[in-house]
Amino acid sequence: MAEWFWVDGAQTSLVSADDRGLALADGIFETMRLEHGVLCLGNYHQYRLTEGLQRLAFRDPDGIAKQALEAVSSWALSLAADYEGSSLRLSITRGSGPRGYAPSASAPPRFIGRLSTGLPALQLPACAGVADIAWPTQPALSGLKLIARTEQVLAAQQLSLSGYDELLMANQRGAIVSTTSGNLFFRRGSQLVTPDLFEAGIAGTRRRYIIEFLAKACEMSVSVTDVFPEMLSEFEEAFFCNSIIGIRSLANVVYGDRKATYDSVAAAEKLRPAIHGMNH
Amino acid sequence: MAEWFWVDGAQTSLVSADDRGLALADGIFETMRLEHGVLCLGNYHQYRLTEGLQRLAFRDPDGIAKQALEAVSSWALSLAADYEGSSLRLSITRGSGPRGYAPSASAPPRFIGRLSTGLPALQLPACAGVADIAWPTQPALSGLKLIARTEQVLAAQQLSLSGYDELLMANQRGAIVSTTSGNLFFRRGSQLVTPDLFEAGIAGTRRRYIIEFLAKACEMSVSVTDVFPEMLSEFEEAFFCNSIIGIRSLANVVYGDRKATYDSVAAAEKLRPAIHGMNH
Repeated sequence: MAEWFWVDGAQTSLVSADDRGLALADGIFETMRLEHGVLCLGNYHQYRLTEGLQRLAFRDPDGIAKQALEAVSSWALSLAADYEGSSLRLSITRGSGPRGYAPSASAPPRFIGRLSTGLPALQLPACAGVADIAWPTQPALSGLKLIARTEQVLAAQQLSLSGYDELLMANQRGAIVSTTSGNLFFRRGSQLVTPDLFEAGIAGTRRRYIIEFLAKACEMSVSVTDVFPEMLSEFEEAFFCNSIIGIRSLANVVYGDRKATYDSVAAAEKLRPAIHGMNH
Repeated sequence: MAEWFWVDGAQTSLVSADDRGLALADGIFETMRLEHGVLCLGNYHQYRLTEGLQRLAFRDPDGIAKQALEAVSSWALSLAADYEGSSLRLSITRGSGPRGYAPSASAPPRFIGRLSTGLPALQLPACAGVADIAWPTQPALSGLKLIARTEQVLAAQQLSLSGYDELLMANQRGAIVSTTSGNLFFRRGSQLVTPDLFEAGIAGTRRRYIIEFLAKACEMSVSVTDVFPEMLSEFEEAFFCNSIIGIRSLANVVYGDRKATYDSVAAAEKLRPAIHGMNH
Protein backbone atom coordinates (compact mmCIF):
# COMPACT_ATOMS: atom_id res chain seq x y z
CA MET A 1 0.00 0.00 0.00
CA ALA A 2 1.22 3.47 -0.87
CA GLU A 3 -0.02 6.57 0.92
CA TRP A 4 0.18 10.32 0.27
CA PHE A 5 -1.05 13.45 2.04
CA TRP A 6 -2.12 16.75 0.55
CA VAL A 7 -2.87 20.00 2.37
CA ASP A 8 -4.36 23.03 0.61
CA GLY A 9 -3.03 22.07 -2.78
CA ALA A 10 0.46 20.99 -1.73
CA GLN A 11 1.70 17.44 -1.27
CA THR A 12 2.80 17.52 2.36
CA SER A 13 2.13 15.52 5.48
CA LEU A 14 2.21 18.44 7.91
CA VAL A 15 -0.67 20.60 9.10
CA SER A 16 -0.61 23.83 11.08
CA ALA A 17 -1.03 23.13 14.79
CA ASP A 18 -3.63 25.92 15.09
CA ASP A 19 -6.02 24.09 12.78
CA ARG A 20 -9.57 24.16 14.16
CA GLY A 21 -10.22 20.63 12.99
CA LEU A 22 -7.43 19.47 15.28
CA ALA A 23 -8.33 21.82 18.13
CA LEU A 24 -12.13 21.53 18.19
CA ALA A 25 -13.21 18.98 15.54
CA ASP A 26 -14.46 22.00 13.60
CA GLY A 27 -14.94 20.38 10.20
CA ILE A 28 -16.25 17.48 8.15
CA PHE A 29 -14.82 14.74 5.97
CA GLU A 30 -15.59 12.18 3.28
CA THR A 31 -13.98 8.81 2.67
CA MET A 32 -14.27 7.95 -1.01
CA ARG A 33 -13.57 5.03 -3.27
CA LEU A 34 -11.47 5.51 -6.38
CA GLU A 35 -11.39 3.05 -9.27
CA HIS A 36 -8.40 3.69 -11.54
CA GLY A 37 -8.12 7.06 -9.84
CA VAL A 38 -11.70 8.05 -10.59
CA LEU A 39 -14.13 8.92 -7.79
CA CYS A 40 -17.20 6.71 -7.31
CA LEU A 41 -20.52 8.49 -6.60
CA GLY A 42 -18.74 11.84 -6.41
CA ASN A 43 -22.06 13.71 -6.65
CA TYR A 44 -23.31 12.07 -3.42
CA HIS A 45 -20.08 12.94 -1.61
CA GLN A 46 -20.28 16.52 -2.85
CA TYR A 47 -23.89 16.77 -1.71
CA ARG A 48 -23.06 15.62 1.81
CA LEU A 49 -20.01 17.92 2.03
CA THR A 50 -22.21 20.84 1.04
CA GLU A 51 -24.85 19.94 3.60
CA GLY A 52 -22.18 19.59 6.33
CA LEU A 53 -20.63 22.97 5.51
CA GLN A 54 -24.09 24.54 5.52
CA ARG A 55 -25.01 23.08 8.91
CA LEU A 56 -21.64 24.28 10.32
CA ALA A 57 -22.37 27.74 8.83
CA PHE A 58 -19.32 27.95 6.56
CA ARG A 59 -19.61 30.74 4.01
CA ASP A 60 -20.36 29.53 0.44
CA PRO A 61 -20.86 25.82 1.23
CA ASP A 62 -21.61 24.99 -2.43
CA GLY A 63 -18.50 26.68 -3.71
CA ILE A 64 -16.19 25.27 -1.05
CA ALA A 65 -17.44 21.70 -1.44
CA LYS A 66 -17.08 21.84 -5.21
CA GLN A 67 -13.64 23.47 -5.11
CA ALA A 68 -12.26 21.06 -2.49
CA LEU A 69 -13.60 17.97 -4.20
CA GLU A 70 -12.33 18.99 -7.63
CA ALA A 71 -8.89 19.85 -6.30
CA VAL A 72 -8.43 16.70 -4.24
CA SER A 73 -9.83 14.47 -7.02
CA SER A 74 -7.48 15.86 -9.59
CA TRP A 75 -4.52 15.41 -7.20
CA ALA A 76 -5.63 11.82 -6.49
CA LEU A 77 -6.09 11.01 -10.18
CA SER A 78 -2.55 12.13 -10.89
CA LEU A 79 -1.24 9.53 -8.43
CA ALA A 80 -3.79 6.69 -8.42
CA ALA A 81 -4.80 6.27 -12.06
CA ASP A 82 -2.65 3.14 -12.39
CA TYR A 83 -4.10 1.47 -9.29
CA GLU A 84 -7.29 -0.55 -9.69
CA GLY A 85 -8.66 0.61 -6.35
CA SER A 86 -7.75 3.21 -3.76
CA SER A 87 -9.39 5.23 -1.05
CA LEU A 88 -9.32 8.98 -0.69
CA ARG A 89 -10.19 10.90 2.42
CA LEU A 90 -10.99 14.61 2.14
CA SER A 91 -11.30 16.72 5.28
CA ILE A 92 -12.53 20.31 5.21
CA THR A 93 -11.75 22.17 8.43
CA ARG A 94 -12.45 25.76 9.48
CA GLY A 95 -8.74 26.47 8.93
CA SER A 96 -6.46 28.18 11.41
CA GLY A 97 -7.94 30.02 14.33
CA PRO A 98 -7.18 31.86 17.55
CA ARG A 99 -7.72 30.32 20.98
CA GLY A 100 -11.39 29.82 21.87
CA TYR A 101 -14.52 28.39 20.30
CA ALA A 102 -15.48 31.25 17.96
CA PRO A 103 -14.18 30.78 14.40
CA SER A 104 -12.03 33.47 12.82
CA ALA A 105 -14.14 35.56 10.45
CA SER A 106 -11.41 35.72 7.83
CA ALA A 107 -9.42 32.43 7.88
CA PRO A 108 -10.00 30.34 4.74
CA PRO A 109 -11.11 26.70 5.19
CA ARG A 110 -8.38 24.07 5.02
CA PHE A 111 -8.52 21.08 2.67
CA ILE A 112 -6.69 17.91 3.72
CA GLY A 113 -6.40 14.84 1.48
CA ARG A 114 -5.17 11.35 2.29
CA LEU A 115 -4.82 8.87 -0.54
CA SER A 116 -4.21 5.16 0.14
CA THR A 117 -3.86 2.61 -2.62
CA GLY A 118 -5.56 -0.75 -2.31
CA LEU A 119 -9.08 -1.69 -1.26
CA PRO A 120 -10.27 -4.47 1.06
CA ALA A 121 -11.29 -7.73 -0.64
CA LEU A 122 -14.90 -8.91 -0.48
CA GLN A 123 -15.39 -10.58 2.90
CA LEU A 124 -17.54 -13.44 4.16
CA PRO A 125 -20.77 -12.59 5.99
CA ALA A 126 -19.89 -11.02 9.34
CA CYS A 127 -20.67 -12.29 12.82
CA ALA A 128 -21.73 -9.20 14.78
CA GLY A 129 -22.14 -8.20 18.40
CA VAL A 130 -23.38 -4.93 19.88
CA ALA A 131 -21.13 -2.05 20.98
CA ASP A 132 -21.14 -0.86 24.60
CA ILE A 133 -21.14 2.79 23.55
CA ALA A 134 -24.29 4.29 22.00
CA TRP A 135 -24.61 7.18 19.54
CA PRO A 136 -25.28 10.57 21.13
CA THR A 137 -28.69 12.18 20.55
CA GLN A 138 -28.27 15.28 18.38
CA PRO A 139 -30.99 15.85 15.75
CA ALA A 140 -29.42 19.17 14.65
CA LEU A 141 -26.26 17.46 13.37
CA SER A 142 -27.48 13.95 12.66
CA GLY A 143 -26.57 12.48 9.28
CA LEU A 144 -23.39 14.55 8.85
CA LYS A 145 -19.88 13.14 8.68
CA LEU A 146 -18.36 15.50 11.23
CA ILE A 147 -14.75 15.12 12.35
CA ALA A 148 -16.24 14.54 15.85
CA ARG A 149 -16.40 10.72 15.83
CA THR A 150 -15.57 9.72 19.41
CA GLU A 151 -18.30 7.06 19.72
CA GLN A 152 -17.23 5.22 16.55
CA VAL A 153 -13.60 5.26 17.68
CA LEU A 154 -14.61 3.65 20.98
CA ALA A 155 -16.79 1.08 19.22
CA ALA A 156 -14.00 0.25 16.73
CA GLN A 157 -11.58 -0.15 19.62
CA GLN A 158 -13.99 -2.54 21.36
CA LEU A 159 -14.40 -4.43 18.07
CA SER A 160 -10.66 -4.90 17.67
CA LEU A 161 -10.51 -6.53 21.12
CA SER A 162 -13.68 -8.62 20.60
CA GLY A 163 -14.12 -11.93 18.83
CA TYR A 164 -16.66 -10.37 16.42
CA ASP A 165 -16.26 -9.23 12.82
CA GLU A 166 -18.45 -6.20 13.42
CA LEU A 167 -20.41 -4.42 16.15
CA LEU A 168 -23.82 -2.78 15.84
CA MET A 169 -24.27 0.60 17.50
CA ALA A 170 -27.57 1.73 19.03
CA ASN A 171 -28.90 5.21 19.80
CA GLN A 172 -29.80 6.47 23.27
CA ARG A 173 -33.26 4.88 23.01
CA GLY A 174 -31.74 1.49 22.20
CA ALA A 175 -32.70 1.46 18.51
CA ILE A 176 -30.00 0.06 16.19
CA VAL A 177 -28.38 2.80 14.07
CA SER A 178 -25.32 1.41 12.26
CA THR A 179 -22.25 -0.78 12.46
CA THR A 180 -18.98 0.84 13.59
CA SER A 181 -18.42 2.14 10.06
CA GLY A 182 -21.44 1.43 7.86
CA ASN A 183 -25.17 1.79 7.42
CA LEU A 184 -27.45 -1.16 8.01
CA PHE A 185 -30.18 -2.71 5.90
CA PHE A 186 -32.49 -5.58 6.77
CA ARG A 187 -34.72 -7.49 4.35
CA ARG A 188 -38.13 -9.09 4.66
CA GLY A 189 -39.44 -10.38 1.31
CA SER A 190 -38.81 -7.61 -1.21
CA GLN A 191 -38.83 -4.91 1.45
CA LEU A 192 -35.60 -3.40 2.78
CA VAL A 193 -35.66 -1.69 6.16
CA THR A 194 -32.95 0.77 7.21
CA PRO A 195 -32.64 2.61 10.55
CA ASP A 196 -34.05 6.09 10.89
CA LEU A 197 -31.23 8.61 11.47
CA PHE A 198 -33.34 11.43 12.87
CA GLU A 199 -31.44 11.68 16.15
CA ALA A 200 -28.08 10.02 15.42
CA GLY A 201 -25.97 8.37 12.74
CA ILE A 202 -24.19 9.14 9.48
CA ALA A 203 -26.32 9.24 6.35
CA GLY A 204 -23.98 7.25 4.10
CA THR A 205 -23.62 7.81 0.38
CA ARG A 206 -24.35 4.10 -0.36
CA ARG A 207 -27.38 4.17 1.93
CA ARG A 208 -28.70 7.15 0.04
CA TYR A 209 -27.98 5.55 -3.33
CA ILE A 210 -29.87 2.40 -2.31
CA ILE A 211 -32.82 4.41 -0.98
CA GLU A 212 -33.05 6.82 -3.90
CA PHE A 213 -32.19 4.57 -6.81
CA LEU A 214 -30.72 1.13 -6.40
CA ALA A 215 -33.43 -0.67 -4.41
CA LYS A 216 -36.04 0.21 -7.02
CA ALA A 217 -33.71 -0.79 -9.85
CA CYS A 218 -33.41 -4.18 -8.12
CA GLU A 219 -37.19 -4.42 -7.57
CA MET A 220 -37.12 -3.79 -3.84
CA SER A 221 -38.71 -1.12 -1.68
CA VAL A 222 -37.07 0.65 1.28
CA SER A 223 -38.67 1.65 4.55
CA VAL A 224 -36.82 4.00 6.94
CA THR A 225 -37.80 3.32 10.52
CA ASP A 226 -36.64 2.43 14.03
CA VAL A 227 -35.13 -1.06 14.32
CA PHE A 228 -34.96 -2.35 17.90
CA PRO A 229 -32.84 -5.40 18.88
CA GLU A 230 -35.93 -7.52 19.51
CA MET A 231 -36.87 -7.03 15.84
CA LEU A 232 -33.58 -8.46 14.52
CA SER A 233 -34.96 -12.02 14.34
CA GLU A 234 -37.88 -10.94 12.17
CA PHE A 235 -35.71 -10.40 9.08
CA GLU A 236 -34.46 -12.90 6.49
CA GLU A 237 -31.30 -10.99 5.62
CA ALA A 238 -29.07 -8.21 6.93
CA PHE A 239 -26.13 -6.31 5.43
CA PHE A 240 -24.20 -3.10 5.91
CA CYS A 241 -22.62 -0.73 3.43
CA ASN A 242 -20.08 2.03 3.13
CA SER A 243 -18.14 3.78 0.40
CA ILE A 244 -15.02 1.61 0.69
CA ILE A 245 -16.24 -1.96 1.20
CA GLY A 246 -19.49 -1.54 -0.69
CA ILE A 247 -21.82 -4.18 0.78
CA ARG A 248 -21.07 -6.88 3.36
CA SER A 249 -23.67 -9.36 4.61
CA LEU A 250 -24.26 -10.23 8.25
CA ALA A 251 -24.32 -13.93 9.16
CA ASN A 252 -25.71 -13.26 12.61
CA VAL A 253 -26.04 -10.75 15.44
CA VAL A 254 -25.52 -11.66 19.09
CA TYR A 255 -27.39 -9.28 21.41
CA GLY A 256 -27.80 -9.91 25.13
CA ASP A 257 -28.35 -13.65 25.43
CA ARG A 258 -30.04 -13.93 22.03
CA LYS A 259 -28.81 -14.45 18.50
CA ALA A 260 -30.43 -13.54 15.18
CA THR A 261 -29.19 -15.62 12.23
CA TYR A 262 -29.43 -14.69 8.55
CA ASP A 263 -29.16 -17.39 5.90
CA SER A 264 -29.90 -15.27 2.85
CA VAL A 265 -27.51 -12.96 1.01
CA ALA A 266 -29.87 -12.49 -1.94
CA ALA A 267 -30.41 -8.73 -1.73
CA ALA A 268 -26.73 -8.07 -0.99
CA GLU A 269 -25.73 -9.97 -4.12
CA LYS A 270 -28.28 -8.13 -6.26
CA LEU A 271 -27.22 -4.69 -5.01
CA ARG A 272 -23.45 -5.22 -4.76
CA PRO A 273 -22.42 -4.97 -8.42
CA ALA A 274 -23.88 -1.46 -8.73
CA ILE A 275 -23.31 -0.11 -5.21
CA HIS A 276 -20.48 2.23 -6.28
CA GLY A 277 -22.53 3.77 -9.09
CA MET A 278 -23.95 2.55 -12.38
CA ASN A 279 -22.19 4.97 -14.70
CA HIS A 280 -18.55 4.07 -14.63
CA MET B 1 0.10 38.91 22.74
CA ALA B 2 2.80 36.38 22.00
CA GLU B 3 2.01 32.79 21.05
CA TRP B 4 4.01 29.56 20.80
CA PHE B 5 3.26 25.96 19.84
CA TRP B 6 4.85 22.80 21.12
CA VAL B 7 4.40 19.26 19.79
CA ASP B 8 5.78 16.21 21.59
CA GLY B 9 8.53 18.14 23.31
CA ALA B 10 9.64 20.29 20.40
CA GLN B 11 8.74 23.91 19.80
CA THR B 12 7.07 23.69 16.41
CA SER B 13 3.79 24.78 14.89
CA LEU B 14 3.35 21.76 12.62
CA VAL B 15 1.54 18.51 13.32
CA SER B 16 1.50 15.27 11.35
CA ALA B 17 -1.51 15.16 9.02
CA ASP B 18 -2.29 11.58 10.10
CA ASP B 19 -2.98 12.68 13.67
CA ARG B 20 -6.14 11.05 15.01
CA GLY B 21 -7.15 14.19 16.85
CA LEU B 22 -7.33 15.95 13.50
CA ALA B 23 -8.90 13.02 11.66
CA LEU B 24 -11.47 11.82 14.20
CA ALA B 25 -11.37 14.13 17.24
CA ASP B 26 -9.72 11.21 19.03
CA GLY B 27 -8.39 13.03 22.07
CA ILE B 28 -8.97 15.49 24.88
CA PHE B 29 -7.66 18.87 25.96
CA GLU B 30 -7.35 21.33 28.82
CA THR B 31 -7.21 25.10 28.73
CA MET B 32 -5.28 26.35 31.73
CA ARG B 33 -4.45 29.64 33.37
CA LEU B 34 -0.84 30.52 34.16
CA GLU B 35 0.20 33.23 36.59
CA HIS B 36 3.86 34.17 36.15
CA GLY B 37 4.20 30.94 34.20
CA VAL B 38 2.79 28.76 36.98
CA LEU B 39 -0.30 26.60 36.40
CA CYS B 40 -3.41 27.35 38.47
CA LEU B 41 -5.31 24.35 39.88
CA GLY B 42 -3.04 21.94 38.04
CA ASN B 43 -4.27 19.01 40.14
CA TYR B 44 -7.84 19.53 38.89
CA HIS B 45 -6.65 19.69 35.27
CA GLN B 46 -4.58 16.54 35.74
CA TYR B 47 -7.55 14.75 37.29
CA ARG B 48 -9.80 15.58 34.32
CA LEU B 49 -7.12 14.61 31.79
CA THR B 50 -6.74 11.26 33.52
CA GLU B 51 -10.48 10.68 33.54
CA GLY B 52 -10.74 11.57 29.85
CA LEU B 53 -7.89 9.23 28.87
CA GLN B 54 -9.52 6.47 30.93
CA ARG B 55 -12.91 6.91 29.30
CA LEU B 56 -11.25 6.90 25.85
CA ALA B 57 -9.39 3.71 26.88
CA PHE B 58 -5.84 5.02 26.46
CA ARG B 59 -3.25 2.79 28.08
CA ASP B 60 -1.81 4.15 31.37
CA PRO B 61 -4.09 7.22 31.71
CA ASP B 62 -2.46 8.27 34.98
CA GLY B 63 1.06 8.12 33.61
CA ILE B 64 0.21 9.87 30.33
CA ALA B 65 -1.71 12.70 32.01
CA LYS B 66 1.09 13.31 34.49
CA GLN B 67 3.84 13.13 31.88
CA ALA B 68 2.05 15.43 29.42
CA LEU B 69 1.13 18.02 32.04
CA GLU B 70 4.63 18.11 33.54
CA ALA B 71 6.28 18.44 30.14
CA VAL B 72 3.98 21.16 28.82
CA SER B 73 4.08 23.07 32.13
CA SER B 74 7.84 23.14 32.22
CA TRP B 75 7.95 24.30 28.59
CA ALA B 76 5.39 27.02 29.36
CA LEU B 77 7.24 28.18 32.50
CA SER B 78 10.43 28.62 30.47
CA LEU B 79 8.60 31.11 28.21
CA ALA B 80 5.88 32.70 30.33
CA ALA B 81 7.49 33.28 33.73
CA ASP B 82 7.86 37.00 33.02
CA TYR B 83 4.22 37.47 32.00
CA GLU B 84 1.67 38.15 34.73
CA GLY B 85 -0.96 36.03 33.02
CA SER B 86 -1.10 33.61 30.14
CA SER B 87 -3.18 30.71 28.93
CA LEU B 88 -1.92 27.27 28.04
CA ARG B 89 -3.81 24.70 26.05
CA LEU B 90 -2.70 21.07 26.21
CA SER B 91 -4.19 18.52 23.81
CA ILE B 92 -3.53 14.81 24.12
CA THR B 93 -4.47 12.91 20.97
CA ARG B 94 -4.24 9.21 20.10
CA GLY B 95 -1.23 10.08 17.91
CA SER B 96 -0.77 9.01 14.31
CA GLY B 97 -2.98 6.33 12.89
CA PRO B 98 -3.91 4.44 9.76
CA ARG B 99 -7.14 5.09 7.84
CA GLY B 100 -10.27 4.00 9.71
CA TYR B 101 -11.76 4.34 13.17
CA ALA B 102 -9.73 1.73 15.07
CA PRO B 103 -6.70 3.21 16.88
CA SER B 104 -3.25 1.84 16.17
CA ALA B 105 -2.20 -0.50 18.98
CA SER B 106 1.36 0.81 19.03
CA ALA B 107 1.34 4.55 18.20
CA PRO B 108 2.23 6.73 21.20
CA PRO B 109 -0.16 9.53 22.18
CA ARG B 110 0.68 13.01 20.89
CA PHE B 111 0.99 16.05 23.18
CA ILE B 112 0.25 19.48 21.68
CA GLY B 113 0.74 22.72 23.59
CA ARG B 114 -0.35 26.25 22.73
CA LEU B 115 0.81 29.07 24.96
CA SER B 116 -0.69 32.58 24.64
CA THR B 117 0.38 35.47 26.81
CA GLY B 118 -2.21 37.82 28.25
CA LEU B 119 -5.52 37.15 29.96
CA PRO B 120 -8.89 38.87 29.49
CA ALA B 121 -9.66 41.70 31.91
CA LEU B 122 -12.53 41.34 34.38
CA GLN B 123 -15.72 42.14 32.50
CA LEU B 124 -19.04 43.73 33.48
CA PRO B 125 -21.98 41.43 34.18
CA ALA B 126 -23.05 39.81 30.90
CA CYS B 127 -26.36 40.13 29.09
CA ALA B 128 -27.16 36.61 27.88
CA GLY B 129 -29.46 34.98 25.37
CA VAL B 130 -29.97 31.29 24.60
CA ALA B 131 -28.15 29.36 21.84
CA ASP B 132 -30.12 27.70 19.03
CA ILE B 133 -28.01 24.55 19.24
CA ALA B 134 -28.41 22.23 22.23
CA TRP B 135 -25.88 19.86 23.78
CA PRO B 136 -26.05 16.26 22.54
CA THR B 137 -27.21 13.57 24.97
CA GLN B 138 -24.30 11.26 25.81
CA PRO B 139 -24.07 10.09 29.44
CA ALA B 140 -21.06 7.86 28.67
CA LEU B 141 -18.86 10.84 27.76
CA SER B 142 -20.51 13.67 29.64
CA GLY B 143 -18.23 15.88 31.72
CA LEU B 144 -15.11 15.30 29.61
CA LYS B 145 -13.32 17.95 27.60
CA LEU B 146 -13.14 15.99 24.36
CA ILE B 147 -11.73 17.55 21.20
CA ALA B 148 -15.21 16.97 19.74
CA ARG B 149 -16.78 20.38 20.44
CA THR B 150 -19.05 21.05 17.46
CA GLU B 151 -21.99 22.37 19.47
CA GLN B 152 -19.93 24.95 21.35
CA VAL B 153 -18.34 26.12 18.10
CA LEU B 154 -21.81 26.69 16.63
CA ALA B 155 -23.01 28.46 19.77
CA ALA B 156 -19.89 30.68 19.85
CA GLN B 157 -20.43 31.51 16.18
CA GLN B 158 -24.04 32.50 16.91
CA LEU B 159 -22.83 34.55 19.88
CA SER B 160 -20.36 36.50 17.75
CA LEU B 161 -23.20 37.50 15.40
CA SER B 162 -25.67 38.26 18.20
CA GLY B 163 -26.06 41.39 20.31
CA TYR B 164 -25.46 39.37 23.49
CA ASP B 165 -22.35 39.04 25.68
CA GLU B 166 -22.99 35.33 26.23
CA LEU B 167 -25.39 32.54 25.27
CA LEU B 168 -26.71 29.79 27.50
CA MET B 169 -26.83 26.29 26.07
CA ALA B 170 -29.51 23.75 26.97
CA ASN B 171 -29.53 19.97 26.76
CA GLN B 172 -31.94 17.91 24.62
CA ARG B 173 -34.60 18.08 27.37
CA GLY B 174 -34.40 21.88 27.49
CA ALA B 175 -32.53 22.10 30.81
CA ILE B 176 -29.81 24.78 30.93
CA VAL B 177 -26.30 23.24 30.97
CA SER B 178 -23.69 25.98 30.46
CA THR B 179 -22.69 29.12 28.60
CA THR B 180 -20.74 28.71 25.35
CA SER B 181 -17.53 28.30 27.35
CA GLY B 182 -18.28 28.13 31.05
CA ASN B 183 -20.21 26.43 33.84
CA LEU B 184 -23.21 28.16 35.38
CA PHE B 185 -24.13 28.83 38.97
CA PHE B 186 -27.30 30.44 40.34
CA ARG B 187 -27.84 31.68 43.87
CA ARG B 188 -30.84 31.80 46.18
CA GLY B 189 -29.93 32.97 49.69
CA SER B 190 -26.78 31.10 50.67
CA GLN B 191 -27.53 28.20 48.32
CA LEU B 192 -25.78 27.87 44.97
CA VAL B 193 -27.41 25.77 42.27
CA THR B 194 -25.43 24.40 39.31
CA PRO B 195 -26.76 22.33 36.39
CA ASP B 196 -26.55 18.56 36.54
CA LEU B 197 -24.17 17.28 33.84
CA PHE B 198 -25.36 13.68 33.80
CA GLU B 199 -26.25 13.66 30.09
CA ALA B 200 -24.25 16.59 28.66
CA GLY B 201 -21.73 19.30 29.44
CA ILE B 202 -18.14 19.82 30.52
CA ALA B 203 -17.38 19.40 34.21
CA GLY B 204 -15.15 22.46 34.59
CA THR B 205 -12.23 22.68 36.98
CA ARG B 206 -13.60 25.88 38.59
CA ARG B 207 -17.05 24.31 38.91
CA ARG B 208 -15.48 21.37 40.71
CA TYR B 209 -13.40 23.64 42.94
CA ILE B 210 -16.50 25.61 43.96
CA ILE B 211 -18.50 22.43 44.64
CA GLU B 212 -15.76 20.63 46.56
CA PHE B 213 -14.15 23.45 48.45
CA LEU B 214 -14.79 27.09 47.72
CA ALA B 215 -18.53 27.36 48.34
CA LYS B 216 -18.15 25.97 51.84
CA ALA B 217 -15.14 28.21 52.51
CA CYS B 218 -17.40 31.14 51.57
CA GLU B 219 -20.28 29.83 53.72
CA MET B 220 -22.48 28.68 50.88
CA SER B 221 -23.91 25.30 49.95
CA VAL B 222 -24.16 23.86 46.41
CA SER B 223 -26.97 21.83 44.93
CA VAL B 224 -26.47 20.03 41.59
CA THR B 225 -29.77 19.70 39.74
CA ASP B 226 -31.71 20.41 36.55
CA VAL B 227 -32.27 24.11 35.88
CA PHE B 228 -35.03 24.80 33.37
CA PRO B 229 -35.51 28.22 31.73
CA GLU B 230 -38.73 28.87 33.66
CA MET B 231 -36.70 28.64 36.88
CA LEU B 232 -34.26 31.41 35.86
CA SER B 233 -36.37 34.15 37.48
CA GLU B 234 -36.39 32.39 40.84
CA PHE B 235 -32.74 33.22 41.55
CA GLU B 236 -31.17 36.37 42.98
CA GLU B 237 -27.85 36.01 41.24
CA ALA B 238 -26.22 34.13 38.36
CA PHE B 239 -22.63 33.75 37.18
CA PHE B 240 -20.47 31.49 35.05
CA CYS B 241 -16.90 30.35 35.43
CA ASN B 242 -14.01 28.87 33.51
CA SER B 243 -10.28 28.45 33.93
CA ILE B 244 -9.33 31.58 32.00
CA ILE B 245 -11.82 34.28 32.98
CA GLY B 246 -12.48 32.93 36.47
CA ILE B 247 -15.97 34.19 37.35
CA ARG B 248 -18.24 36.53 35.41
CA SER B 249 -21.67 37.59 36.60
CA LEU B 250 -24.81 37.58 34.48
CA ALA B 251 -26.87 40.78 34.45
CA ASN B 252 -29.80 39.10 32.75
CA VAL B 253 -30.93 36.25 30.52
CA VAL B 254 -33.39 36.71 27.66
CA TYR B 255 -35.22 33.46 26.84
CA GLY B 256 -38.20 33.30 24.51
CA ASP B 257 -40.22 36.47 25.24
CA ARG B 258 -39.13 36.58 28.88
CA LYS B 259 -36.18 38.08 30.73
CA ALA B 260 -34.63 37.14 34.07
CA THR B 261 -32.69 39.97 35.73
CA TYR B 262 -30.02 39.62 38.42
CA ASP B 263 -29.14 42.60 40.59
CA SER B 264 -26.75 40.85 42.97
CA VAL B 265 -23.12 39.96 42.36
CA ALA B 266 -22.47 39.10 46.02
CA ALA B 267 -21.50 35.43 45.63
CA ALA B 268 -19.40 36.13 42.53
CA GLU B 269 -17.41 38.74 44.44
CA LYS B 270 -16.90 36.42 47.40
CA LEU B 271 -15.71 33.50 45.26
CA ARG B 272 -13.69 35.39 42.65
CA PRO B 273 -10.49 36.14 44.60
CA ALA B 274 -9.87 32.43 45.24
CA ILE B 275 -11.33 30.87 42.09
CA HIS B 276 -7.92 30.02 40.60
CA GLY B 277 -6.78 28.24 43.77
CA MET B 278 -5.98 29.31 47.31
CA ASN B 279 -2.41 28.12 47.44
CA HIS B 280 -0.47 30.32 45.09
